[in-house]
Amino acid sequence: MMIVMKQTATEGEVQSVIDRIESVGAHAHPSRGEEVTVIGAIGDREHIARLELEGSPGVDRVVPILKPYKLASAQIRHDQPSVLDIGGRKIGGDHFALIAGPCTVESRDQLLTTAHVVRGAGATMLRGGAYKPRTSPYAFQGLGQEGLRLLAEAKAETGLPIVTELMDARDLEPVLEVADVIQIGARNMQNYALLSEVGRSNCPVLIKRGLSSTLDELLMAAEYVLKEGNPNVLLCERGIRTFESHTRFTLPLATVVYLHGKTHLPVVVDPSHGTGHTWLVPQMAAASVAAGADGLIIEVHPDPENALSDGNQSLDPKQFGETMETCRRVAEALGRTLGNGRTATRA
Amino acid sequence: MMIVMKQTATEGEVQSVIDRIESVGAHAHPSRGEEVTVIGAIGDREHIARLELEGSPGVDRVVPILKPYKLASAQIRHDQPSVLDIGGRKIGGDHFALIAGPCTVESRDQLLTTAHVVRGAGATMLRGGAYKPRTSPYAFQGLGQEGLRLLAEAKAETGLPIVTELMDARDLEPVLEVADVIQIGARNMQNYALLSEVGRSNCPVLIKRGLSSTLDELLMAAEYVLKEGNPNVLLCERGIRTFESHTRFTLPLATVVYLHGKTHLPVVVDPSHGTGHTWLVPQMAAASVAAGADGLIIEVHPDPENALSDGNQSLDPKQFGETMETCRRVAEALGRTLGNGRTATRA
Amino acid sequence: MMIVMKQTATEGEVQSVIDRIESVGAHAHPSRGEEVTVIGAIGDREHIARLELEGSPGVDRVVPILKPYKLASAQIRHDQPSVLDIGGRKIGGDHFALIAGPCTVESRDQLLTTAHVVRGAGATMLRGGAYKPRTSPYAFQGLGQEGLRLLAEAKAETGLPIVTELMDARDLEPVLEVADVIQIGARNMQNYALLSEVGRSNCPVLIKRGLSSTLDELLMAAEYVLKEGNPNVLLCERGIRTFESHTRFTLPLATVVYLHGKTHLPVVVDPSHGTGHTWLVPQMAAASVAAGADGLIIEVHPDPENALSDGNQSLDPKQFGETMETCRRVAEALGRTLGNGRTATRA
Amino acid sequence: MMIVMKQTATEGEVQSVIDRIESVGAHAHPSRGEEVTVIGAIGDREHIARLELEGSPGVDRVVPILKPYKLASAQIRHDQPSVLDIGGRKIGGDHFALIAGPCTVESRDQLLTTAHVVRGAGATMLRGGAYKPRTSPYAFQGLGQEGLRLLAEAKAETGLPIVTELMDARDLEPVLEVADVIQIGARNMQNYALLSEVGRSNCPVLIKRGLSSTLDELLMAAEYVLKEGNPNVLLCERGIRTFESHTRFTLPLATVVYLHGKTHLPVVVDPSHGTGHTWLVPQMAAASVAAGADGLIIEVHPDPENALSDGNQSLDPKQFGETMETCRRVAEALGRTLGNGRTATRA
Repeated sequence: MMIVMKQTATEGEVQSVIDRIESVGAHAHPSRGEEVTVIGAIGDREHIARLELEGSPGVDRVVPILKPYKLASAQIRHDQPSVLDIGGRKIGGDHFALIAGPCTVESRDQLLTTAHVVRGAGATMLRGGAYKPRTSPYAFQGLGQEGLRLLAEAKAETGLPIVTELMDARDLEPVLEVADVIQIGARNMQNYALLSEVGRSNCPVLIKRGLSSTLDELLMAAEYVLKEGNPNVLLCERGIRTFESHTRFTLPLATVVYLHGKTHLPVVVDPSHGTGHTWLVPQMAAASVAAGADGLIIEVHPDPENALSDGNQSLDPKQFGETMETCRRVAEALGRTLGNGRTATRA
Repeated sequence: MMIVMKQTATEGEVQSVIDRIESVGAHAHPSRGEEVTVIGAIGDREHIARLELEGSPGVDRVVPILKPYKLASAQIRHDQPSVLDIGGRKIGGDHFALIAGPCTVESRDQLLTTAHVVRGAGATMLRGGAYKPRTSPYAFQGLGQEGLRLLAEAKAETGLPIVTELMDARDLEPVLEVADVIQIGARNMQNYALLSEVGRSNCPVLIKRGLSSTLDELLMAAEYVLKEGNPNVLLCERGIRTFESHTRFTLPLATVVYLHGKTHLPVVVDPSHGTGHTWLVPQMAAASVAAGADGLIIEVHPDPENALSDGNQSLDPKQFGETMETCRRVAEALGRTLGNGRTATRA
Repeated sequence: MMIVMKQTATEGEVQSVIDRIESVGAHAHPSRGEEVTVIGAIGDREHIARLELEGSPGVDRVVPILKPYKLASAQIRHDQPSVLDIGGRKIGGDHFALIAGPCTVESRDQLLTTAHVVRGAGATMLRGGAYKPRTSPYAFQGLGQEGLRLLAEAKAETGLPIVTELMDARDLEPVLEVADVIQIGARNMQNYALLSEVGRSNCPVLIKRGLSSTLDELLMAAEYVLKEGNPNVLLCERGIRTFESHTRFTLPLATVVYLHGKTHLPVVVDPSHGTGHTWLVPQMAAASVAAGADGLIIEVHPDPENALSDGNQSLDPKQFGETMETCRRVAEALGRTLGNGRTATRA
Repeated sequence: MMIVMKQTATEGEVQSVIDRIESVGAHAHPSRGEEVTVIGAIGDREHIARLELEGSPGVDRVVPILKPYKLASAQIRHDQPSVLDIGGRKIGGDHFALIAGPCTVESRDQLLTTAHVVRGAGATMLRGGAYKPRTSPYAFQGLGQEGLRLLAEAKAETGLPIVTELMDARDLEPVLEVADVIQIGARNMQNYALLSEVGRSNCPVLIKRGLSSTLDELLMAAEYVLKEGNPNVLLCERGIRTFESHTRFTLPLATVVYLHGKTHLPVVVDPSHGTGHTWLVPQMAAASVAAGADGLIIEVHPDPENALSDGNQSLDPKQFGETMETCRRVAEALGRTLGNGRTATRA
């Protein structure tokens, strides 16, 4: 950490900062320039952070030099990507995961139809919400336990692992019974009670980036899960909120490349929420693959026009099949495989 | 709701939209222009919203005409502001609340000293966190139950009602024992499980705006609480996240005026988080009063330099006293009273 | 245009709006609902826009139904993309343009070396700035006329058409002598005097999106050029400013897909400015191709470490060659050709 | 400047950075930590900036320690605010300027009526646009030279100094004949050719902040003018573009306090553009005064409903009078004078 002193800082103020740094067992390296003094603090980063020197007299700014996350960092695994095994399907490194399904579980028929469609087109996991976070308390909130039961049935029928959202720590037990991956939604990315709770399970966790979260904050959310002992974390870029309103959110694919440089965790992209419009999804899915994503999570509905939620950003079966075909060709052009995954990863 | 059809929409698509609107008992009013057809949908807004027409063939856009919140709307109270009574202190309408205290309860001494200081300077409520949402799992997370106990003691000593944050629905009971106002933090503004839970209590709830939440979303968060039967909701502007990094967040005071036009609920401003720097707080507090805020929530620490959190945005006792004096003068210039509140509101 | 009246609007106010709409020769279609009245205004959109009804008594909001641009719209060309011919290289439709070169022309040696490198790797045009907009008045502002002279020399040597920025209408004449494409930088995207001026030339114009410009505003900037009679406009996404600071800007590739749906003009992506970091450029270039971009504009420097500007986002010759190879494979996977262009487009 | 090396940087890379720093006559102070090496560079900041070390091998980040502006900095005047004299009215320090008038000069009658109204209510300067930057090339672009002539007439009649916008350097001469303050609009804040041109005049310049400009960029725009020898610069906060769409722009009043800490130049607030809605203007004007603004610039129209531009954010004469009265009371509460200014500042 570098502590930049004010130009008006007195020698006493400089010394006081040095003393406080050394009081926690760290080393202070002052550089006294003509205009300004800068103090390097080297030692246990958590101890130094606890000092919260930002408010001290004479201090202009504190500039972090090292990243605040540790277990999520690329260095802890010597720049080797983590490969997670989810019900026999792998994700990370050379393994690509294709997660697809309806936004919300609406009925047995809707779910099973979609499950068969997406498996047929090459999906490796099935997504579907039983508990839905809705902006309005008057909107459809999901089928709850009945939705979980239907997901279990779809899994039994198709063999696809299940990705489903957990919103309330008190629902953890029933969700664990069916989920192969617990999804933490964007609105709960900084719900630390929830993150710690899933960290104490061993179930893989897919954390969606908050609408206005920085990538450091996303990695810190992962750190909450990892710290509790659960190493199975997937990160998901699903678009951020900006001034731009032509698309529902702004989907920054550079996130994939950036995160690959900073963390060993797999990075998935959600082009359905990331654009909010069906007609933008196919090309953004292909672009995600080209950017190096480890997976896609895509909303598919047998009849988007009559969906109870997110109909306007879901693909219908035909669109989904074509999109997968395009993604497959892009992946191959880059020397990667985007397939059923099962055979590939077991070979 | 207005449904704008695409220029390429067929007559069949137009008719299909009309049929669907009428299928839920609403009326459809098509206007066929030379270039485009627009259909007005008039009826129960929730029924129409459930149709999610945005995804239908031939539909270009759906433009909401009415606001999605009802219980939070100004109309429901015929443009009369709600006045809440919190332990004998009122807020809303002509009543101004001055909430102050440390970011986090750190120790008995720190809390009691601060409580006496802020009461002396005219605060009407005491804030202090026992459970703290921290970006890093390694940072100090608050004293928990011990913090609640200290808050109870401070309340007994000073008579000030307590404002404290709830992060986990499972902590509701102990928090209710001491809290006069439950704070829902910015990171949990869309934690709907938590909102519904406090909605089932009768304790006043202060909802902080999420970093990237629109004002409609803030009002919908309030609607979640109101819908469960708890009418005691306060809204709080605490700054939003923008490209600007000179201040920690961007504090848009027009929020106060806008919300006063749309809702009957009181609106509080938090200039401490809203700016993130002690030196910016006093003038932004005064500006908040001038903008018409119903209250302020300000971080005060007896020794900001040694605070365990947010030291760099806390006022020390002297700064707090001066800031209150300035705010008082601005309030008086506008014909309002910003005082201890007790006498004033009981008169 | 739809005019949404306030719930409190009187019948007189409704009538007054209707009268004003009809006063400019347009038709008014009122829909009177139980809660609110909405008036459709159908007629010459410019005449109606001039009324600026937003401020009228009783009016809540004015919702535009039609897009404000006309000459830039996809409809004007019946959804057929424009193909521009630039010194024998085509761009748009099936034709992909690869524009590369240094940020700034620094010296004869630097420019000619780079020009040969990029031509060798398949670039179809050479970029290079003689006039540079710099945030600081103390930074290197470009070589000016001497830079233009060197660009002319590079063009003579390599045959590559030249893309170079114009910042001041008073420099138009000398720039026109060498430029095959005039670049309007992001900072000048709403410099309407400049846009109109290049609109009166016949030289192709590449308009970079402003840092906080909406896509409608970008299309309106194009409309300024088109309106003066110059049909040769290219649009360029170069990243927007958001709260995210891990990358220099946020590069939203959905822009490409969105614009292809709304305009006939070719859309180019600049992954160098869009990310601001060399290590993020190659994958974002590939992703741009996958998203359907009509071209790329990339900064290349023979020795980025010693560049006078933007060294930290330039590719060196080897990185550029590899990036082009990857882009070529992605393009082929999608059935497109990304090549020298000359032969291809002449075939 | 601090250069943070990568954790993987070799000793050779560290030495190479040190050598380059010393090659421009600056001093390098390396601090070698266990995890990372940081190099302080002390010397002429412009020389060091020219090195653009960000791109060098082994360099992770370059952290600026000193601000990039010099002539605009508070230090250059030892924290004393600049007081500008504009046609006998002062602004800055204890002097408050009240600039009001129509968005656009529409007619002799409209302008003269407004001029008398605003003078009567205490305005110290008259604003009015002869050249208007409009998003659409089809919208009314202002009366041009005829508008300037009318402004001259209004000035002769009322004695109020004139604030008017310059969009094109080629119009400088006629604008200088009537303007007491040249306004540079938000869209041209980084039109460096224009800034340098007005820097070569001696006429006071009001620079509006760009919609997505940081405060450092605003100060650098001022630096462009100051560097050419014109010391008469006013800064104007007019709202920034964020995800929030309930107001037209987001008006961050902390800008005023922040700039007062960093620059000696006066800071004016524009609550008309900053909110975009008439009903939000009065309270935001009062809040601006409470935040410590040196002036206000407000749109007033005798008949906003029939304004040719910005009618929906203009005050009518009655609203303006009331707003001024409120602002005056807030100013007095803070020990400041907001008056005609003439007498006050001459006393």
